[in-house]
Amino acid sequence: MKISIYDTTLRDGTQGEGVQLSVADKLFVTELLDDLGVAYIEGGWPGSNPRDETYFTRVARLRLDHARLTAFGATRRAGIHCDDDPSLQAMLRSGTPAVTIFGKSWEFQASHALGISAEENLELVEDSVRYMKSRVEEVIFDAEHFFDGFKDDEQYALSVLRAAISGGADQVVLCDTNGGTLTEEVTRAVKIVAETVEVPLGVHTHNDAEMAVANSVAAVAAGVTMVQGTINGVGERCGNANLISVIPALELKMGHTCLTEGKLKKLTHVAHTIDEISNRPPQESQPYVGRSAFAHKGGVHSNAVMKDHRTYEHIEPVAVGNRHRFLVSDLSGRASIHLKAKEFGIELTPDDPSVEKILSRLKVLENEGYQFEGAEASFKLMMDRACGRHTPYFNLHDLEVKVCVGRGDQNDPLMLSSTADACIKLGVGDVRAEVRSEGDGPVHAIDRALRKLIDKFYPGLKNVYLVDYKVRVLSGGKATASVVRVLIISSDGTDEWGTVGVSDNIIEASWQALADALEYKLVKDGVVPHT
Amino acid sequence: MKISIYDTTLRDGTQGEGVQLSVADKLFVTELLDDLGVAYIEGGWPGSNPRDETYFTRVARLRLDHARLTAFGATRRAGIHCDDDPSLQAMLRSGTPAVTIFGKSWEFQASHALGISAEENLELVEDSVRYMKSRVEEVIFDAEHFFDGFKDDEQYALSVLRAAISGGADQVVLCDTNGGTLTEEVTRAVKIVAETVEVPLGVHTHNDAEMAVANSVAAVAAGVTMVQGTINGVGERCGNANLISVIPALELKMGHTCLTEGKLKKLTHVAHTIDEISNRPPQESQPYVGRSAFAHKGGVHSNAVMKDHRTYEHIEPVAVGNRHRFLVSDLSGRASIHLKAKEFGIELTPDDPSVEKILSRLKVLENEGYQFEGAEASFKLMMDRACGRHTPYFNLHDLEVKVCVGRGDQNDPLMLSSTADACIKLGVGDVRAEVRSEGDGPVHAIDRALRKLIDKFYPGLKNVYLVDYKVRVLSGGKATASVVRVLIISSDGTDEWGTVGVSDNIIEASWQALADALEYKLVKDGVVPHT
Repeated sequence: MKISIYDTTLRDGTQGEGVQLSVADKLFVTELLDDLGVAYIEGGWPGSNPRDETYFTRVARLRLDHARLTAFGATRRAGIHCDDDPSLQAMLRSGTPAVTIFGKSWEFQASHALGISAEENLELVEDSVRYMKSRVEEVIFDAEHFFDGFKDDEQYALSVLRAAISGGADQVVLCDTNGGTLTEEVTRAVKIVAETVEVPLGVHTHNDAEMAVANSVAAVAAGVTMVQGTINGVGERCGNANLISVIPALELKMGHTCLTEGKLKKLTHVAHTIDEISNRPPQESQPYVGRSAFAHKGGVHSNAVMKDHRTYEHIEPVAVGNRHRFLVSDLSGRASIHLKAKEFGIELTPDDPSVEKILSRLKVLENEGYQFEGAEASFKLMMDRACGRHTPYFNLHDLEVKVCVGRGDQNDPLMLSSTADACIKLGVGDVRAEVRSEGDGPVHAIDRALRKLIDKFYPGLKNVYLVDYKVRVLSGGKATASVVRVLIISSDGTDEWGTVGVSDNIIEASWQALADALEYKLVKDGVVPHT
Repeated sequence: MKISIYDTTLRDGTQGEGVQLSVADKLFVTELLDDLGVAYIEGGWPGSNPRDETYFTRVARLRLDHARLTAFGATRRAGIHCDDDPSLQAMLRSGTPAVTIFGKSWEFQASHALGISAEENLELVEDSVRYMKSRVEEVIFDAEHFFDGFKDDEQYALSVLRAAISGGADQVVLCDTNGGTLTEEVTRAVKIVAETVEVPLGVHTHNDAEMAVANSVAAVAAGVTMVQGTINGVGERCGNANLISVIPALELKMGHTCLTEGKLKKLTHVAHTIDEISNRPPQESQPYVGRSAFAHKGGVHSNAVMKDHRTYEHIEPVAVGNRHRFLVSDLSGRASIHLKAKEFGIELTPDDPSVEKILSRLKVLENEGYQFEGAEASFKLMMDRACGRHTPYFNLHDLEVKVCVGRGDQNDPLMLSSTADACIKLGVGDVRAEVRSEGDGPVHAIDRALRKLIDKFYPGLKNVYLVDYKVRVLSGGKATASVVRVLIISSDGTDEWGTVGVSDNIIEASWQALADALEYKLVKDGVVPHT
């Protein structure tokens, strides 16, 4: 069965703490979602902020192949004619083929949030939907707080839906606005509504009880044909229903169709790209698409998955564009080292003497606070070094970096300006050289100085750029003297790899991660070291 | 009804990527959980790693008031007598009053992972349970892959449970080991099992389909009386059922009893403490206990919640020890500034001219990449500064920091050593001074130099220590020259507060966050600035 996916990342998603998208970002996300084949993209709430109005002007120039754009807004205000209602008029100006109007379906909300009577609320709903339906092709009605309202007063909640339908709503959407409804309550309510009303139903859930995905999927089983949610579940408070988890459950586990055929494989890519755009750290343990979603730590699990993935994987990772990974830790030991080596194309039988060397080196490093999860490139280099198979591409002799922070403006104590200078003494083969560089910050200065010299020897490094730089304090309570772990994600446009450095000095840790990032690129490309 | 909470943070939780607990950590967590009043604490898998054996030796000396300790392990191996089976013997040595044995309940697993027949698997289960039951007070049987097995062959899955019960199992636990089962499938299976077997049932779910919490709660509704899970949902791949979300759903929404009376209020504290111990960044949007769980961004929502929390909150935050927060962003404007000011005890009516000043300053800062979510202390200082109500406690004239990284060992190119020196020129009132200090890293050196001087003027700063230090790269793709945001969480033992700094130079950004952290402490304590 075809289930409509209604994406509200651009509207409800941006209500999430820490989620901020520029107009350009929103346009880019629109194209990504359209390519995936979602049925609706809710672009914004034009009445609530000017940025959304700019978005609607510019998105009108895009050609969308699959998705229908919608603008979101409230029913008209009490005591105002629709012609004069700023929210409805802003929606009309957005020029989208569909609009989504939300209204109260809980008497408590009507009286406490709007200060109007239950009866007047029904009028607002019917009136607003009718007004819009005569001007826009499709009108979707979001029944805010539907499940809470239904629990409080079934008949009133149903009468709100009837008001919207009698106004001409094409679809009505049952919202769990506060996100506190239990799955069995969702199932029960949807079944009753489905028996009562004739138009197609949708569901819109929030994750405050950590049940948004299960509730959306249960609602489909009970009769809704549209699911509203956001990519990665971003959204206010605890977020909205995570479409990245809803879609594969509907397609792979229930046999429904949500996306354009073949696009499910892009799910991991889309999830990560949107995290990147919204500058949100990807959640490693995110179902289906997280780096850990198919990562196996215990030796028993790793071995079983190698034999048959169904032993410890609920779906084939490749179906959603993910892959499995075998992790290294003191819980696994020899078998995992062997599997990990295999991932990097190193042939090691579990009883190879190198495995012992790697394990003992690993033990030393883990004691210092190293953790190679997320830094597979450093792990690969560590294995090579432990086995004596690695010839360094360059050697550090000495590094000095000086940062000055001063007043940028003598009158404003908060206006600061700063400089950073690095000086590196380095050996490449027989050559020993000293290079200096300025930079925007100390790590940038070191990076520039390093590349000034070694790009000449290894031109392939020119394509390497830093994707992410993370710092984590390892030992709490020791103030600024704590040990820090720096994790760098690098890319050459084709691959991405992670490297790690650990030290009580952030500059030293950054150097380690930076040097490993470049060495890994050279190893990966099979470049011969200058010796 | 009493529902037993069975915590496996110390065993299944530590299978999670990035989760590592020392023996001391595990003992501390044990006491925390016991105080909360969970029914069972699964301490480890003594057969699988030596650290768990040390834990069991030491935990035996603790007095637990509420929880029963269990040791986890597999059924005996095929072809071995229980007396000679290392796993069973290790469990016995742990000396716990209860043990939890896991066995296969899916024929595919028996044949593919163990390489034994369906019949032989039944013998292993019954035999192992019987052997343990005659030596330990309570035996719990975890039916691994139960829901997958049940889907594949109902009768065989049930016969495994019967084998365990016939061996003497006190409780049998239905496990969704791969985490891919849908809620309605859980409900259906539990109902059938509950009609078939007589012993109390438990459930153990994983979050691979983002349904672990909903599935656990649905299982209780269908008849189980024990829920296994972990604090914050840590665990292999996508994690286990998050007890921090399961418990309040059962207690507040379904009227069951899980914890010692009055302890639900400690949930937020316990969740954050265990995140801290396992060195895992707390998830802001975590249901019930996250910093954003009751955070309101939109002006409409904030105003409604101020009137009646039920408008946009599914439970009272205080019931789980959390609180609501009102956020500031371009989506909210005047109303939120007013609410935020109120939170800090600043009286501002929405039409106060200061609101305009704050908004325009906020706009400038947000453009530079500032984000005050998570850095409320810097926000408070920004408001005071924008209104001209803040007298600086100290003024930076100049700051210089030099870091040298060199070879620690001439023979090992990877052994580095480093030094950091800071020199700060600072004014406090009329006094202008220059202080120098070494430190473990540049930020530590700056911190020490700064305190050398200002502790004399403001002795209360001696108690302030850094809890966390986070760096986030703001603009992707610009390599190491990117703008970074530094977020510092500080504490004085009583309160915690967040401050922020933004710059393309990590040292400058760190200085800003550090200086704000100290200024906020002084403002908070009502200290009069030296002028």
